[in-house]
This record gives sequence, structure tokens and C-alpha cells, in this order.
Amino acid sequence: MMSNPSPDRFSVLYHIIVRGSETIEAIANDIAIEQTVEAPMACIPESHFDQGIIGRVEDITCIDVSKKKYAVSISYRCDVTAYTVPQFLNTLFGNISLKNNICIRDISPAQALVNIFPGPSYGIEGIRNYVGIHGRPLACTALKPMGLSVDDLSAMAYSFANGGIDFIKDDHGVTDQIFHPFEKRVAACQTAVEKANKENGNKTLYIPMVCGPFDKIEKQVVFARECGVKGIMIAPFLVGPDTMRYLAKKYKMILFGHPALTGTFFSHPDHGIAPGVMLGLLFRLLGADVSIFPHAGGRFPLTQSDCLSIRDFLKKPMASFKPAFPCPAGGVTLSRVEELGNLYGIDSMFLIGGALITASTDISASTKAFMDTIKSFFQIN
Amino acid sequence: MMSNPSPDRFSVLYHIIVRGSETIEAIANDIAIEQTVEAPMACIPESHFDQGIIGRVEDITCIDVSKKKYAVSISYRCDVTAYTVPQFLNTLFGNISLKNNICIRDISPAQALVNIFPGPSYGIEGIRNYVGIHGRPLACTALKPMGLSVDDLSAMAYSFANGGIDFIKDDHGVTDQIFHPFEKRVAACQTAVEKANKENGNKTLYIPMVCGPFDKIEKQVVFARECGVKGIMIAPFLVGPDTMRYLAKKYKMILFGHPALTGTFFSHPDHGIAPGVMLGLLFRLLGADVSIFPHAGGRFPLTQSDCLSIRDFLKKPMASFKPAFPCPAGGVTLSRVEELGNLYGIDSMFLIGGALITASTDISASTKAFMDTIKSFFQIN
Repeated sequence: MMSNPSPDRFSVLYHIIVRGSETIEAIANDIAIEQTVEAPMACIPESHFDQGIIGRVEDITCIDVSKKKYAVSISYRCDVTAYTVPQFLNTLFGNISLKNNICIRDISPAQALVNIFPGPSYGIEGIRNYVGIHGRPLACTALKPMGLSVDDLSAMAYSFANGGIDFIKDDHGVTDQIFHPFEKRVAACQTAVEKANKENGNKTLYIPMVCGPFDKIEKQVVFARECGVKGIMIAPFLVGPDTMRYLAKKYKMILFGHPALTGTFFSHPDHGIAPGVMLGLLFRLLGADVSIFPHAGGRFPLTQSDCLSIRDFLKKPMASFKPAFPCPAGGVTLSRVEELGNLYGIDSMFLIGGALITASTDISASTKAFMDTIKSFFQIN
Repeated sequence: MMSNPSPDRFSVLYHIIVRGSETIEAIANDIAIEQTVEAPMACIPESHFDQGIIGRVEDITCIDVSKKKYAVSISYRCDVTAYTVPQFLNTLFGNISLKNNICIRDISPAQALVNIFPGPSYGIEGIRNYVGIHGRPLACTALKPMGLSVDDLSAMAYSFANGGIDFIKDDHGVTDQIFHPFEKRVAACQTAVEKANKENGNKTLYIPMVCGPFDKIEKQVVFARECGVKGIMIAPFLVGPDTMRYLAKKYKMILFGHPALTGTFFSHPDHGIAPGVMLGLLFRLLGADVSIFPHAGGRFPLTQSDCLSIRDFLKKPMASFKPAFPCPAGGVTLSRVEELGNLYGIDSMFLIGGALITASTDISASTKAFMDTIKSFFQIN
């Protein structure tokens, strides 16, 4: 059960398994101290407790007696985070990441987070209005493989756009390599997509992967914007979560979040940050309008229940944060569109990358087949 | 066994456990593709293989027949990383972080990494020469708890310095909160330490925690430097690993690396990045002169073998990268100084935080006792 702390506090819901002889009460109190003052009791002024500076254990409920598994809610004063993403993450899971048997399952209320995080600039409705597509899931594909020439990638982008795809993103490994330097690639691919749009009347958007170093990433975003690019893809755990927050808030472009390097947060079922909280809640808070994640049953081990939790955290009402698109990916093929439609609903984005390139030597034709499959499933012309 | 690829390639050593019916060869090939081109075979031009753009499986050795556990070495062309930290991490573990049963145990040769990472500016010898202390481990303590006033923290810094400690760092949760805003705190603590140094002739250094957002963190470093601060502490996984690389390379201050939020990389024994590689090798590559980690037997679950691996990765010869200090912490007490000395040797830094504050109401006296214990163990006056 989540507690309902005062508006200047947020609560973290942990699932905790008791292994040794400690009590759940002692473990919960240790977390409340570790994540705030990190000091022996004798060092902590009494007034710290009175003022609520220490994390406060709000609720402990046993959820599995035989496993000694508990749901524990601990609240933190918002100003302990300095209203910054790095210190928020520090409070959320900094030191206890180094422990075990602690899994974060929720953070609430969303209202307490509005001064820390920007949330999506567009969200589901904003993107739909921008691209003018309603009544069906959106479709995305990827420019790959890394190592092609800029000419080959931009020709591929032109073919995808002519097939009527909604979004063309760079593969997440296509960044700023000598084969396809960021500026040269982005300019060429954007030009190719605009050319196709002009010819066929579509509104396909090109979404470059932005993965530059600290001192170049903002210049890359500015360059892309000057080329006419309307959206970018960021992997927050490659470039730093706060880099994503900053770029989302300042440039307000359509933002795709990529899960690279997040996997160990949920590879252990008993310790970490649950997939829904990481790829749903946190990505949405950081500004993702679209969160890409590996759908169950492909080549990655997330379960269907994990994926539906990501979906729910992206879409559910959360203070003023707009809902974001779930984008299941990772080896998706045409034959799974119906399954995906049933699971994720109309307000989702389907990403098929490699399968469109291999399905046919005619990329425009395989892209059109993808779009026709989506449209026929949702009975749209 | 690590392979010895050509100078324009680096190798990653993975320990992989085979669970299903797949062969280790198929798993290794999948990683080599997933981490570079991430595309079905039919999409990959033959020339990509000829040019070595795809990861190359260099060696597969079974290390535990009953567990079906293998040591697999895969090499990557350096330019696939775009010579940037975010894309290096992407290549290293981006998508496969989302899989399981893959643990990174080494990266080599170091020579291949010199164009990506700065390494320590000072290293062990540089810090020793700077502070003029040889022949014994260095000693560090922490300003805490978060939530004290700036006056209290700076008075505490003065007492620590008067006790003769070598380094005083902020607690990692003391960042930029309203209780102790970064600028006000850093100026006051630096002034207090300089005053004590002037009075007692020591060369204690104050190491503030730098944890600001993307658009403020560099200004914080510049401010600290203008106050006379010579070193800073950074948690790379809170602020972004490349933020650390950038600040290390540009400002060349003494750099303490803090492990906050790294824990899930090694909480699963079979999947992630081993503690030595994360807190030893990667922290050193990113520029840490000192790597803080929770010593075995305290309140964190790292084993002694994990800690010794961190030590070894920090100290072993690695191309032009200087060796860095291991700094065992996390509930260390005076009674463990001898044990730490035996384990980590003279070239290490011991961090005692809370125990110095609680040991006595006279912080200078408890600090002096800590220093005396170190000096007597190493028979120094």
C-alpha cells in the first residue's frame, strides 16, 4: 500500500525480502536513514527527525509470508532531492543499489515530482495532433545497420518514408562514428525524408539518435533542430538521466527514450528498479514522449507482465505529466501486430526494424505492408 | 583467456552461462552482432564482416562444465565507439544489459582505450606528491549528516582538519539542498579547512560532492576551484559517466569517484559488470584518482574477493593510465584499520565517516586517534 504523505514529501514503494535474522522494521529504518543522512543514530540531531529530514517509514505490509516478502512505503521530503535529478536518483536508490533484496515498485504522488521532472512535452495527444494521425497505433522503424554510408542510410530513410511509415529512428548504435558522422547523417536523412514527404504527402518524421559527449550533445540537438528535425532519441543511462531532463525541458522536441544500459536495474527479480518504474515512470518523468522497450517473446527476457506494467506507468494519469506512448520493440515482426494491438491498444507505437529490411529487397513495399497490417487491424483506410 | 586483438580493437571478456538449448557459439555470435549492427544477418553487408565492423568472437573457453559457464572474448573496432564514453558504454553493455547470464569481467588492452578515456590526472604518486605524504595509507572522513547548517558543517570540517585528517569529503548526499546550498557550503568548508591548515601546518584537503544538474555542474566545479578547492567527488552514475570524463579531463582536479547507483550492475552474480570492472577499471578510466567502495564485512554485501578485484583494477599497470587509490568505506571503524592495511596495502585510502563523529564528542580527538592508528600500524611518526 502506498502512503499518502504531505504534499512536500514523496513516497517510494519497495518490495523487500528478509533473508537473515533482521526484522523488516529494522531494514526499513536502515533504508530511511541510509538514503538521507547515512549516519549512525548518535550523529543525527533529534531535530532532524522532528523536521522530517530523515526518510519516514509510512507502511509495512507482508505480501508473502513464506518468502518473508514485504511491501514497504518510505516517504522523503522533496527538498532532500535539491529538486535535481541526480540527487533524486541518489535519494531513490544511490547507496541501497549496493545492497540487495530491495526492489522499487512505485513512486508517488506524482504531484510531488512536478518541481523535479519536466515530463513529456507532447505526450500521446500532442504527437497525434502534430502528425495528424488518429485511431490507430503509430509505426516506427530503424535505420541500420551501423557502418553503412550516409548515402546508404539516407536512401534507406527515403524508402521507408515512401512506404508511409510514421517515424524513422536511427538504430541506437548509429551515433557519431566515422562511417556516418552525426551532422552529415542527420542533414542527409532529414533531407531525404522531407523529399519523400513532399512527393507523397506523408508527414514521416526522422528521429536521430543523440548520444554525444557532455560537451557536444547540446550542439548536436541544436544542429538537428536547425536541419528541421522535430524529434530525437536519447538513452538516458548512456548520456546521463539529467542530460535527458535538460534537453527535454529546454528544446521541447518529440523525445524517444531508449533503454540501453538500463537492464541490470531489473535483471534481478528481487533487487533493483522494476521495469515499469524504470522504463515507464522514470522515462516519462524525464521527458520521454515515447518509451522504447523490448517486448516479451522476442530476443529479450522481459515478461508480458513487465511490459504491461511499463505500458500502465506510461499511460496512467499522473498529475500534470502527459501520457506517453509505449513502443514495444526488439525483434517484432509483422505477424505479431495483432497481438501487440490487443496488448497495448490504439495508443501505442510499434517498432519494426530489421524485419522490414530483410522482408523484401523493396523497403518501401515491406514498409507499406507493415502500415497496411496496422491499418487493417484497426480498420482504417 | 583474453584475446590480443590488433591495436585498433579492444576485447571484452564475458562470463556467460548457457541456460537453454542454445550453443555458446550462437550466444557469442549474437552478442557480437547485438552490440554493433543489431540486425538480422540478411541486412548486414558482407563487407561489414571483412572490415571488422561486427564484433569478433576471439575465444571461447569453458570454465565450469557442470554450470555450462564459459569465458568468451569478443573484440570490437575502437572507432565503433565514436571515441566517446556514451557510445563506448553502448557497445560494452547497452542492449545486452537487457538480457541475462552475461557478466563483463575485463576489458583490454588498455592501450586501445587511451583515445576514449582520460584516466586519473594525479593517480597514487601524484596525490602523494601533492599532499606530501608517503609511507602510509591516506585517511579520509565525511561531513555529515545531510541537513546540518553550513555553520555546523564548516565547524565540523575545522575539527576534522585539526585532528590531522588528510581528506574531508562531503557525504555523498550533501549536494545542493536548501540546508546547505552548494556555493555557501563549499566556500565555508574550504575556508574552515584552510584556517586549520594555517594554524597546524597540515595540508588537509576538502573534497566537495559535485552532483549538480547538466546545466549547473560545470559552474559548480569552477566555483569550487575559485574557492581554492583542489579536489571534488563525483558519482558518475548519478550525473552521467561522460560528465565525469569531461570534468576530469578539463579541470584536472583530484577526483574521488563515488559508487552511488552502480549497485545493480553487480547485484546479480551472473549478469552485469563485475565490481572490479565497474568500480576499479571503469572508474579509473573515467578519471577517478580515488575510488570509494563499500568494504566487505560492513553493511554492504560486496565480498572480500570483489573488493580485492577492485583494488587490482585500480592499481595494475594499464597503458598510460595512472594507478588510483582504492578507498574502502561503508561502516569502517578504527578496529578494522589493521585488517584494511593488510588487504589493501600502503597505497590505499581509508574512509571513516560516522564512526569518527560518534566515537567522541571531540571530533578532533577521534580524528587524531584514527591518524595515530594508521601511523602506528605503518610505524610512522
